[in-house]
Amino acid sequence: MRTGVWLVGARGSVATTSIVGALALRAGLTGPTGCVTELPAVRGAALPAFADLVFGGHDVVTTPLAKRAEALAAAGVLPARLVAALTEELAVVEQELRPAPTGGSQADRAATLLHDLTGFRERHGLSRVVVVNVAATEPVPDPHPAHADPAALRTALGGPDEVLPPSSLYAYAAVTAGCPYVDFTPSTGLRLPALTALADAHRVPYAGHDGKTGETLLKSVLAPMFAMRNLRVRSWSGTNLLGGGDGATLAEPAANAAKVRSKQRVLGETLGYLPQGDTRIDYVEELGDFKTAWDLVTFAGFLGTGMRLEFTWHGCDSALAAPLVLDLARLTAAAHAAGRTGPLTELAFFFKDPLGAGTHALADQWTRLCEFARHLHVGGSDDPRG
Amino acid sequence: MRTGVWLVGARGSVATTSIVGALALRAGLTGPTGCVTELPAVRGAALPAFADLVFGGHDVVTTPLAKRAEALAAAGVLPARLVAALTEELAVVEQELRPAPTGGSQADRAATLLHDLTGFRERHGLSRVVVVNVAATEPVPDPHPAHADPAALRTALGGPDEVLPPSSLYAYAAVTAGCPYVDFTPSTGLRLPALTALADAHRVPYAGHDGKTGETLLKSVLAPMFAMRNLRVRSWSGTNLLGGGDGATLAEPAANAAKVRSKQRVLGETLGYLPQGDTRIDYVEELGDFKTAWDLVTFAGFLGTGMRLEFTWHGCDSALAAPLVLDLARLTAAAHAAGRTGPLTELAFFFKDPLGAGTHALADQWTRLCEFARHLHVGGSDDPRG
Amino acid sequence: MRTGVWLVGARGSVATTSIVGALALRAGLTGPTGCVTELPAVRGAALPAFADLVFGGHDVVTTPLAKRAEALAAAGVLPARLVAALTEELAVVEQELRPAPTGGSQADRAATLLHDLTGFRERHGLSRVVVVNVAATEPVPDPHPAHADPAALRTALGGPDEVLPPSSLYAYAAVTAGCPYVDFTPSTGLRLPALTALADAHRVPYAGHDGKTGETLLKSVLAPMFAMRNLRVRSWSGTNLLGGGDGATLAEPAANAAKVRSKQRVLGETLGYLPQGDTRIDYVEELGDFKTAWDLVTFAGFLGTGMRLEFTWHGCDSALAAPLVLDLARLTAAAHAAGRTGPLTELAFFFKDPLGAGTHALADQWTRLCEFARHLHVGGSDDPRG
Amino acid sequence: MRTGVWLVGARGSVATTSIVGALALRAGLTGPTGCVTELPAVRGAALPAFADLVFGGHDVVTTPLAKRAEALAAAGVLPARLVAALTEELAVVEQELRPAPTGGSQADRAATLLHDLTGFRERHGLSRVVVVNVAATEPVPDPHPAHADPAALRTALGGPDEVLPPSSLYAYAAVTAGCPYVDFTPSTGLRLPALTALADAHRVPYAGHDGKTGETLLKSVLAPMFAMRNLRVRSWSGTNLLGGGDGATLAEPAANAAKVRSKQRVLGETLGYLPQGDTRIDYVEELGDFKTAWDLVTFAGFLGTGMRLEFTWHGCDSALAAPLVLDLARLTAAAHAAGRTGPLTELAFFFKDPLGAGTHALADQWTRLCEFARHLHVGGSDDPRG
Ligand SMILES: NC(=O)c1ccc[n+]([C@@H]2O[C@H](COP(=O)([O-])OP(=O)(O)OC[C@H]3O[C@@H](n4cnc5c(N)ncnc54)[C@H](O)[C@@H]3O)[C@@H](O)[C@H]2O)c1
Ligand SMILES: NC(=O)c1ccc[n+]([C@@H]2O[C@H](COP(=O)([O-])OP(=O)(O)OC[C@H]3O[C@@H](n4cnc5c(N)ncnc54)[C@H](O)[C@@H]3O)[C@@H](O)[C@H]2O)c1
Ligand SMILES: NC(=O)c1ccc[n+]([C@@H]2O[C@H](COP(=O)([O-])OP(=O)(O)OC[C@H]3O[C@@H](n4cnc5c(N)ncnc54)[C@H](O)[C@@H]3O)[C@@H](O)[C@H]2O)c1
Ligand SMILES: NC(=O)c1ccc[n+]([C@@H]2O[C@H](COP(=O)([O-])OP(=O)(O)OC[C@H]3O[C@@H](n4cnc5c(N)ncnc54)[C@H](O)[C@@H]3O)[C@@H](O)[C@H]2O)c1
Ligand code: NA
Ligand code: NA
Repeated sequence: MRTGVWLVGARGSVATTSIVGALALRAGLTGPTGCVTELPAVRGAALPAFADLVFGGHDVVTTPLAKRAEALAAAGVLPARLVAALTEELAVVEQELRPAPTGGSQADRAATLLHDLTGFRERHGLSRVVVVNVAATEPVPDPHPAHADPAALRTALGGPDEVLPPSSLYAYAAVTAGCPYVDFTPSTGLRLPALTALADAHRVPYAGHDGKTGETLLKSVLAPMFAMRNLRVRSWSGTNLLGGGDGATLAEPAANAAKVRSKQRVLGETLGYLPQGDTRIDYVEELGDFKTAWDLVTFAGFLGTGMRLEFTWHGCDSALAAPLVLDLARLTAAAHAAGRTGPLTELAFFFKDPLGAGTHALADQWTRLCEFARHLHVGGSDDPRG
Repeated sequence: MRTGVWLVGARGSVATTSIVGALALRAGLTGPTGCVTELPAVRGAALPAFADLVFGGHDVVTTPLAKRAEALAAAGVLPARLVAALTEELAVVEQELRPAPTGGSQADRAATLLHDLTGFRERHGLSRVVVVNVAATEPVPDPHPAHADPAALRTALGGPDEVLPPSSLYAYAAVTAGCPYVDFTPSTGLRLPALTALADAHRVPYAGHDGKTGETLLKSVLAPMFAMRNLRVRSWSGTNLLGGGDGATLAEPAANAAKVRSKQRVLGETLGYLPQGDTRIDYVEELGDFKTAWDLVTFAGFLGTGMRLEFTWHGCDSALAAPLVLDLARLTAAAHAAGRTGPLTELAFFFKDPLGAGTHALADQWTRLCEFARHLHVGGSDDPRG
Repeated sequence: MRTGVWLVGARGSVATTSIVGALALRAGLTGPTGCVTELPAVRGAALPAFADLVFGGHDVVTTPLAKRAEALAAAGVLPARLVAALTEELAVVEQELRPAPTGGSQADRAATLLHDLTGFRERHGLSRVVVVNVAATEPVPDPHPAHADPAALRTALGGPDEVLPPSSLYAYAAVTAGCPYVDFTPSTGLRLPALTALADAHRVPYAGHDGKTGETLLKSVLAPMFAMRNLRVRSWSGTNLLGGGDGATLAEPAANAAKVRSKQRVLGETLGYLPQGDTRIDYVEELGDFKTAWDLVTFAGFLGTGMRLEFTWHGCDSALAAPLVLDLARLTAAAHAAGRTGPLTELAFFFKDPLGAGTHALADQWTRLCEFARHLHVGGSDDPRG
Repeated sequence: MRTGVWLVGARGSVATTSIVGALALRAGLTGPTGCVTELPAVRGAALPAFADLVFGGHDVVTTPLAKRAEALAAAGVLPARLVAALTEELAVVEQELRPAPTGGSQADRAATLLHDLTGFRERHGLSRVVVVNVAATEPVPDPHPAHADPAALRTALGGPDEVLPPSSLYAYAAVTAGCPYVDFTPSTGLRLPALTALADAHRVPYAGHDGKTGETLLKSVLAPMFAMRNLRVRSWSGTNLLGGGDGATLAEPAANAAKVRSKQRVLGETLGYLPQGDTRIDYVEELGDFKTAWDLVTFAGFLGTGMRLEFTWHGCDSALAAPLVLDLARLTAAAHAAGRTGPLTELAFFFKDPLGAGTHALADQWTRLCEFARHLHVGGSDDPRG
C-alpha cells in the first residue's frame, strides 16, 4: 500500500523535518520518538509503513530541500549527520516538488494543482495521496457568496476574483482529485460549505485544524485538571515567542489573529467559562525554530484562596510538528482505505481547533484516537460513527 | 444519614481548614470551589450532604481550634470573616476533640481510641464514622513480626513494644470499631497485612495514601501527555519549598523520605521508565502554608531534539487538601453504606500513592471515579468489581 | 521644616498607599521597609521627617480616601489594621483633597490649581510644597507651537485649545506657585521647553520620569551584569500582566505606548545596542495591584554558545511605589531648601526614564544618589554640579 | 611578554574550553565575547595578548585534549568547526600536558610538579607562568598542625601523611617555583597560613576562590538591588541542576558542602542578614555542561507586603568559565609583572568567595577591577593599596 504524502508548503520547516524524518526512519537511522502512530495503542496493520510513504509537494519558494535541511541542522532542529546521510534520498524527493502555480484564473491554477497531484499518483502507482497543508498561515479571508455552494464556486473560480484563499484552492484541487486533505494550519482550507460539500461528493475524508504542539497541548491537559478538581481558573495569560518562518508570518496581525483564536478555544470549551487573559504571539527572530511559551494561570481554591501556576515551554516547533504530520498522513490514508468520508473528528487529538464538535481534553481525545485506530486495524470498513 | 468525620490530627492545618470549610458550606457562607463531589459528574443522592457531617478527632496538641483557625486566617489560608462568623459552630466541634492517648501499652491506647470513636458515634446517633488521618507524616517504621497477622498483633500490642506507628494504631482502632479509614498522609496507616486482614474481617472499606494536591497532581496530567505523544522524558527534577507544620515535619529526613517516595511513583508507572532527576522537599518557614514547587522536565522529540518544560506551582496546601478530605469522607461513607469493603481503588484520583494497582494518569482515575460515583448513586449495593 | 506633599491623582492606589504609609510611620505603627531615604547611606538631617509631611492633592474622582484605603487592604496591598488605626488621620487628609478643576479655559483651571496649592501652603504654614504627579498615565500629546516658549504658552492657555495635557497643566501651576515638581508617571509633565524655562525662571527643582519599581528595576541591574561580563544579549522580551487602575489605563494603546517606551530605554543605553524583543503590558483585571512580569533574555557567551535567563517578578506595584514617592518628596524638598534648581538628575535611581543624560545602571545611580544626599546633609546650598 | 598558563585539571571541561577558545582567538576564528579583559574599561597594554599565552597543565586522566574538545563540541559547548580547525594547535598543547604525579611522599610529588613547571617556563622562554586551578572540587580537608607554618609544612610533606589536599600541593609547588597562583575552584588551594606565608616569601601574587559564573553572579547584582531599595529579603532558595564532570563531583556530599558554602556568602554580606532558605546542587547527568539554576526570593516591601522574584538561569558553565580563566591569567600575569604580591583582592569581580574582605556587590567589584586595570596600564609597579 504505497501512499503519497503531498505537502503544501513543502520547503518549509515542518515539511522538511517531516521528509527528513520519514527518510531517516525508512533508512533505520533514527527511532520513532514523537510518532504517536508507533505507540502500542495506535500502531497496527492498517497504517502504511514509513517505508511506504512517497513525498511530493508544492511551494512558492524554490530553495532546494537539501539546503533547507542543512539550515535546520545548523539551527539544531535536525542532526546534521542525518542530512548528510540522506543526500540521495532528498534529491529524489526534490524531483517531486512543484512550484505553486501563479497567473491565470483560480480555475487555471486549480487545474495545474490537480494535474500535479494526479501525475504524482500515477507516476508512482500510489494507492492514494494524502494532501497535507503545512504552508504559512494565511489571514482570515473575506467572505464571498460563492463559498456557499459547489456550483457557484466552480463558476466564480473561472472569473477574475481571488475567490478562495490559497489553502482552500489546494483543498479544492485535492478533493477534486479524490485525495484526502489534512490541514495542519489555522488557515481556512476545507472549512467552507462549498468545499465540504465537494469533499462529500468525492467521498474523501479530511482532518484539521492547526497542529497542537506547544502551549495548547499543555492547556489541553491542564485545563481539564483544573476542571476535574473544581478549581476556578480566574485568568490564563500566555506569551509565545518564536522566530523561524512561522514566527515571521505570525508577526503579521491578520495571521496572528487566526492563530490566537485557534489557541483560545480549548479553555472556554474545557472549563465551561472563559477566564480573563489573552494569548500573545511575538516574533523574535533570534529564537529560530525554538519557541518559548510562558503561561500564567491564576485560580481560586477552597474558600476562595488565590493560587498560581506558571509554566515555560521551550520546544522545537518543527520537531514537535513533523512526527504528527506523518501520523496524520498514515491515519488519514488508512481511513480513506477503510472507506471513511467526511471530517475525521477522531483525530482531534492532533489539533488546536479540531473539526467537529467534541472535547478539547487531551485524555478524551486520546481515548477516541485509540478506538479509531483499533477499529481501523480490525478492518472495519464501515464508518464507526454509523 | 448523619455521618461522623473523625480527624486524626484534628488541630492541624488541613483538619482545621476542612472543618471551617464544611461549617461555612453548611451555613451557606461559601461555595464548593475545590470540592470534587460537587461536580455534576460526581455529585448525587448517595453522598451525605455537607450539613450531615459531624466532626470530631484526636490530636497530640491542645491549641484551641478557633485559635488555629485564626492563625490560618492571618496567614491568608482562610478568610478571616468566616472564622469570625463561625465562632459558635467551632466551639461545638471543639467539644468533640480528644487528646491522643499516651502512656500504658499500645493495647490500652487502642482501647481509649475505640472508646472515643464509639462514644462519638453513639452520642450523635451517627450512621457511621469515617476516620481520616491528617496527622503529621511519620517516618517509615521498622518491620515487626506482629505486622503479619491479626492474632499476633493483638498479643504484641499488650506487650511493652511500640509495635505500631501511631497512624496504624488509629487504623487498628478504626476498623475494630467498624469505621472506614482514609489515609490522607504517606504514613503507614492500614498498610500492614495484619490490619488489612482485620479491616476485611470487620467488613469496612478503606482508602489512601497521601492526598495529591500539588506537584504530583501536575505530574499526573503532564506525564501522560508526554507518554501519549511518544516524547521521551530524559529528566524530571522537582523542588518543593514549604513552611507550615507539614513543612517542619517533612524537614525531618525520615518523613521526607516517605513523602518523596510517594511523589515519585507516578513517573515510573506512567512513562514506563524512570527518568533521571530527583524530587526535593525543603522547609522554608517563611512560606507558611503556601508551597512553591518548581519542576524542570527535559525531553527529546523527533530525531532526538532536546526540549524543556518548567513549571512553578504556588499553591496553598491546606486549601487544596481540605475539600478533598471532605470529598473522601463523603465518598467513603457512601461506599460503606453501599456495603463496600476493602481498598477503594476507585478513589485513586485523590492520592499520590493510591492503594491497589492501577493507573496514575489523572484522566483515567477521573473516569474510574465518575463510574464509581454513578454506581453509588444508582443504588448499587454490590461491589462493582464483582 | 513642615513640608507639603501635594499628590496629583491623590485618590489613586499609589497616592493612597503613600499617605497611609506616611501616617503609619508617623504613628510608629510600621517600619520604613522600602524607604530608600531611611538607609544609612541616604538618611540625614537635611530631609524632612515623616512626621513633618503634610498631605493634600487633586483627583478627578471623589471616592473617599478611607474607602480607597479599605479597598487596598481588602486586596492585600495594605494591612487592614493600619487603615482601621488611622481613621482620624485619614479624615484630616481628606479635608485637603480638592477636585481637579473642569470647565473654563486652561488658564482658568491653572488659576484654580495655583489657588489650591498656595492656600494649602499658607493654611499649614509650610516651608514648601512638593507636587508629585501620581495620576493615571496620559497618552503622548500632540505637539503645539505654544509648547516652545513661556509667553506663547501663557497666551494660548487663555484661548479655547487644550494646549497642555493635564500633567503639564499641573506642572505649570506648580512651578508658577514656586513648588518643586516630581513626575512619577511617564506622562509629559514638565518635559516641554516652555515649562522647563518657567521652572528655571521660578528657581524650582524638578525630577522625573516614571517610578522604577519592577521589570525595569531588574533590567537596571541585569543589563549592566551582562555588559560587565561582555556577554552578548541577543533578545530581551518582557510581558507585564497587571490589573488595578494603572492596568486599566495602560490597556489603552496610547498610554501603553508611552509606558513601553520608557521601559525600553535602559537596555539600549546600558548595553550599547538594542537586542531583539519587545516589552508588553497586558491588563488582567483579576491580578489587581499585583503585577506579574516575565522576561526572557537570550544571550551568547564565549565562542557564541547560546544561553538564557528568565525571571518572574510578582510585585505589589503600589507597595513598591509608595515609599519611593515619599523618598522623592523628602529629597526634592531638601534640594529646594538647599537652593537647587533645574532637573535633579541625581534622582535617576528612582526612575525608568530619568531626566538628564546619564547612566541607567542602578549601581551608578545609587552612587550618585548617595553623593547627592551626603552633599545635602553637610549643608551644601550650592549646586554640586557647579 | 610570552606568558605561560598552567592549568591544573587541564583535560577538564573548563580547561579544554579555555584552551580551544584562546587558540581560536589567536587564529582570528572567533571574537572575545565573554572576555572581560577585552572590554574598553579593562583592556590595555599591560595585559599579555591572547597570542602570547602558552598552555600546559596537569591532569589525573589521560583523555587526549582533542577528544575532550570533540566531546564538548558534540554537547554544544564548543562549535565543532573550531575543534576541526585547530587540530594542529591542540596537538602542540597536548605535548605540554603532564600526568599528575602519584606515589612517593607529598614532597616527592611536589618536586615533580616544580620540575614540570620550571621545565615549561624554560622550554618556552616564558616571562612567567600563571598556575590556574581548574581541577575537580575537593572535599574540605581535615586540619593538620603543619598547615600553620612553612617550616613545619616542609618537614611534614616528607613524611608519610597526606598533609595537603591536592589543590594545596599544586599551590605549594607553584609559589615555590615563583609562579602566581589562581584558584578557580572552591578547593583549599593557597588558603592555609603556611602557604600564604610561603607565597609572600616568594613574592608572588595569588587570587581566588571559585569562579562566579551563574547563580552567584545573579545574586551579586540582585542582592544589592534589594539592599539599595531597602526591601527585606525573607527567603532565598536555590536549586542548581547540572551534569558534566563538575556535576558528578559535586554530587559527592563533601564537595557539595564546599561549593554551597561559597555560594551563600554573597547574601549575608550584601544584605547584612541571612535570609531563610538553602542552595542545593543536584546532579542530573543528562543536562551535561548546561546548568539550570532556579532561585526563589520572597521579600517584604512597604508596610510588610509580601512579594516574590523567581529566576531560571540556563547557562553553559564551561562557556561562562573559560573566558574568565583567560582574564584571570592575563590580569594576574600583569600584576606579577608590575611587582604585585599577596592576595589580588581587586579580582573579587571574578569569584564567588573572593580572597580578602570586601564587597560582594558586582558593581563595586567592577569599579575596583577597572581601577586595578587602569593602574596596571599606566605602568604602576607599586602596590596600589600602599
Ligand atoms: N511547527 C509547529 O509546531 C506548528 C504547529 C501548528 C501549526 N503549524 C503551522 O504549520 C505551517 C508551517 O509552519 P513552518 O514552521 O513550516 O513555516 P515555514 O514558514 O517554515 O514554512 C511555510 C512554507 O509554506 C510556503 N508557502 C507559503 N505560501 C504558500 C503557498 N501559497 N503555497 C505553497 N507554499 C506556500 C512557504 O514558502 C514556506 O516554505 C504554519 O502555518 C504553521 O502555523 C506549525
Ligand atoms: N496539605 C496538603 O496539601 C497535603 C497533601 C497531602 C498530604 N498531606 C498530609 O496531611 C497531613 C497534615 O498536614 P498539615 O499541613 O495539616 O500538617 P500540620 O502539621 O498542620 O498538622 C498535623 C497535625 O497532626 C497532629 N499530630 C501529630 N502527631 C499526631 C498523633 N500521633 N496523633 C494525633 N495527632 C497528631 C499535630 O499535632 C498537628 O496538629 C500531613 O501528613 C501531610 O503530609 C497534606
Ligand atoms: N505603582 C507603580 O509601581 C508605578 C510605577 C511607575 C509609575 N507609576 C504611575 O503612577 C501613576 C498612578 O498609578 P496608580 O496605580 O496609583 O493608578 P490609579 O489608577 O490607581 O490612580 C490614578 C489616579 O489618578 C487620578 N487621575 C486621573 N486623571 C487625573 C487628572 N487629570 N487629575 C487628577 N487626578 C487624575 C485617577 O482618578 C486615579 O485616582 C500611573 O501613572 C502609573 O503609571 C506607578
Ligand atoms: N564551569 C564553571 O562555571 C565553574 C565555575 C566555578 C568553578 N568551577 C570549578 O572549576 C573546576 C573544573 O570544572 P569542570 O567543569 O572543568 O570539571 P571537570 O570535571 O570537567 O574537570 C576537572 C578536571 O580535573 C581533573 N582532576 C581531578 N583531580 C585532579 C588532580 N588532583 N590533579 C589534576 N587534575 C585533576 C579531572 O581529571 C578533570 O579532567 C571545578 O572545581 C569547578 O567547581 C567551574
Ligand atoms: Na518561572
Ligand atoms: Na520559569
